[in-house]
Amino acid sequence: MIAEIIAIGSEMLTPFRQDTNSLYLTEGLNNLGVSVAFKTIIGDNLAQLTAAVRTAISRADIVLFSGGLGPTEDDLTREAVAAALNLELHRDNDIVTDLYKRYAARKLVMPPNNAKQADVLAGATVLPNPNGSAPGQYLDTVVDGHRKILILLPGPPNELKPLFDNQAKPLLAATLPPRHLARRQLRMPLIPESQVDARTAPIYQQYSDIETTILAAPGEIQLHFITAKPTLAEAQARVDELTSRIEAEMQEDVYSSHGESLEEVVLLMLGLRHLTLSAAESCTGGLLSQRLTAIAGSSRYFLGGAVVYSDALKTSFADVPADLIATHGPVSAEVARALAEGIRTRTGSSLGISITGIAGPTPGTGPDAEKPIGLVYVALSDGHDTQVKQLNLFGDRERIRWWASQHALELIRRTLL
Amino acid sequence: MIAEIIAIGSEMLTPFRQDTNSLYLTEGLNNLGVSVAFKTIIGDNLAQLTAAVRTAISRADIVLFSGGLGPTEDDLTREAVAAALNLELHRDNDIVTDLYKRYAARKLVMPPNNAKQADVLAGATVLPNPNGSAPGQYLDTVVDGHRKILILLPGPPNELKPLFDNQAKPLLAATLPPRHLARRQLRMPLIPESQVDARTAPIYQQYSDIETTILAAPGEIQLHFITAKPTLAEAQARVDELTSRIEAEMQEDVYSSHGESLEEVVLLMLGLRHLTLSAAESCTGGLLSQRLTAIAGSSRYFLGGAVVYSDALKTSFADVPADLIATHGPVSAEVARALAEGIRTRTGSSLGISITGIAGPTPGTGPDAEKPIGLVYVALSDGHDTQVKQLNLFGDRERIRWWASQHALELIRRTLL
Repeated sequence: MIAEIIAIGSEMLTPFRQDTNSLYLTEGLNNLGVSVAFKTIIGDNLAQLTAAVRTAISRADIVLFSGGLGPTEDDLTREAVAAALNLELHRDNDIVTDLYKRYAARKLVMPPNNAKQADVLAGATVLPNPNGSAPGQYLDTVVDGHRKILILLPGPPNELKPLFDNQAKPLLAATLPPRHLARRQLRMPLIPESQVDARTAPIYQQYSDIETTILAAPGEIQLHFITAKPTLAEAQARVDELTSRIEAEMQEDVYSSHGESLEEVVLLMLGLRHLTLSAAESCTGGLLSQRLTAIAGSSRYFLGGAVVYSDALKTSFADVPADLIATHGPVSAEVARALAEGIRTRTGSSLGISITGIAGPTPGTGPDAEKPIGLVYVALSDGHDTQVKQLNLFGDRERIRWWASQHALELIRRTLL
Repeated sequence: MIAEIIAIGSEMLTPFRQDTNSLYLTEGLNNLGVSVAFKTIIGDNLAQLTAAVRTAISRADIVLFSGGLGPTEDDLTREAVAAALNLELHRDNDIVTDLYKRYAARKLVMPPNNAKQADVLAGATVLPNPNGSAPGQYLDTVVDGHRKILILLPGPPNELKPLFDNQAKPLLAATLPPRHLARRQLRMPLIPESQVDARTAPIYQQYSDIETTILAAPGEIQLHFITAKPTLAEAQARVDELTSRIEAEMQEDVYSSHGESLEEVVLLMLGLRHLTLSAAESCTGGLLSQRLTAIAGSSRYFLGGAVVYSDALKTSFADVPADLIATHGPVSAEVARALAEGIRTRTGSSLGISITGIAGPTPGTGPDAEKPIGLVYVALSDGHDTQVKQLNLFGDRERIRWWASQHALELIRRTLL
């Protein structure tokens, strides 16, 4: 069975707000073995909403609505569903009584428009809302010979979430065959999407029962696999099999097989080898350190380091000779090497990593004046050897800085393999 | 004219990812006087996507597509639009040549599947993509007697944004009646939304011709104002008037009146006073430095500093006496003060800022073992005085780190006012 989620509210069609309920609902549906095939975001307009309901029931088995159940003239979800399905709305006296009681408890008189929240679709089950005034509704019906389940939920997340979990999900679960879902995720850094696809498609295409998604994230490609089977063991075995075959093809390009981030994997490898790391960052200005320290527990393997944005700090915090900077420029293989070696010595860490480059949009100065924006050097010292990599990155400042930090992490990972 | 935005990609139907391009596209469309009435999010499925295209052209004048233009089998936007409109796709030899050149420039052989990115809808204008391999397409056509504009854009934001701004928007603007829109944005850090609303609603409610949106962003509240008038001067004067009245009410709580970020404002103030800054970060691990150095030109005022994640580095990079750490614990007002003073002296900057705290989820150790997660100290030294602020933050590690960096920036701003 496939689902559509319709989020109703004109504010979600502005540049400032977006639907987030659907992420929560999607996870809950997936856990029941239901995939979300469509999401629609629509404003508070009866004709448009009614047409969208018709479209949804023509293409999905389960339709979830979030929002549009309140007391105002803009709240039109009940009316739109009734119109689309040619159903009557009946005012439910128990709900009306509850609404009066809610107001009375706060010593307020209920404005008459509130009563519309008690309008229930013919045949629907009312889902009482302990956290708000508008109840939800659950309708299991037949449209043109096809079974359709419609679930109307209030928009505020603190009302929608418990109402969905505690009332809608059990009703839905009781009508669905028991299904068990398994997921895996492979991640590969610094590799083109097309290369990943060319090498993996011949494998994952043999698994038509597994939904495979290729996702290009900044500086990496992710492969997501998901499948549903009668038992969890079957589902897990099936995605594990595909994952293993893809790993065998992509070899060391795969850094993560359960969705860990690159920084998590680097910290894990440092931990396994009882190594510590420090960083001297110029153009990334703390981004690499920030990524590593964002991981809980990183303090055991990452000591810290220096943000050597100025030339003087390269000398005072990482012992880079001033004449080396003057001769080669701060963006040079020589300075990258000295930074990695210097920060390692100064912090007493096992490994020292350094990044120096021109992130733009303004070019370098002095000896760096002729060097292109996007030129970055990354160096890693272990006390015996120092590797230096020259990168020629493109894009804006944010992209160059991110990719530089990604290359630095990948240099550490490859070295520790 | 009303628009629909269709975001294509199965990953946006998972619990992990959502469409964000539509926020950017909506702002650009609104600036041209076009409202977004529908958003659809749909997976990489040809039949479903083709049907969604038909639905969109039946209810909107302008349809924007983001995603599905890449080289993989999952990239189906071109094919779906062609099917929905009964149009032919022609392979464009110029684009094919460009694709070969892109690969040749990187000394790679182009996989044959890449050529499908050169398939162009009959009648469409190609929108070259300087930041990626898949060009956009712009089709101004007539369907069943109604004019329809379809704009196909690549999914990655760094490709979509410039392509939309520089190529699609000018084509669209040329076909639409001129309209003049003015916006302003006020930002206030570290203040509750309810307080902002209580103080400003009596003012902005007097301007019913201005659309006011209150937005709670991490660590700050933003007020967005937008209005359309026959001339730009009228529109600008009207939002400027409201903005001035709100600024008069909120006084120094307002840090930005044209949408600048807090880090941009701090760098600007440093520049105006010819001051330099350095930072010693413990629990934020480089986040503050990273935020400052993300701004182009920051190197003139921000020298850098140290990520003093370990106790030893607090001593070796910022001269914090080891016995001070042993006595009070690294998370203490005393250590925060010493860090700010030490990093200022060691770097020779005008101001030194420090952050030390317990970001969680694991508690502190040694003398910090009894201190609560969320306890953070921020200190600022100017060589004469050192201010120390104690913060009691709540939330997860990410939230505590972000708010700590926000408090540090706000301490600098308030000091420089």
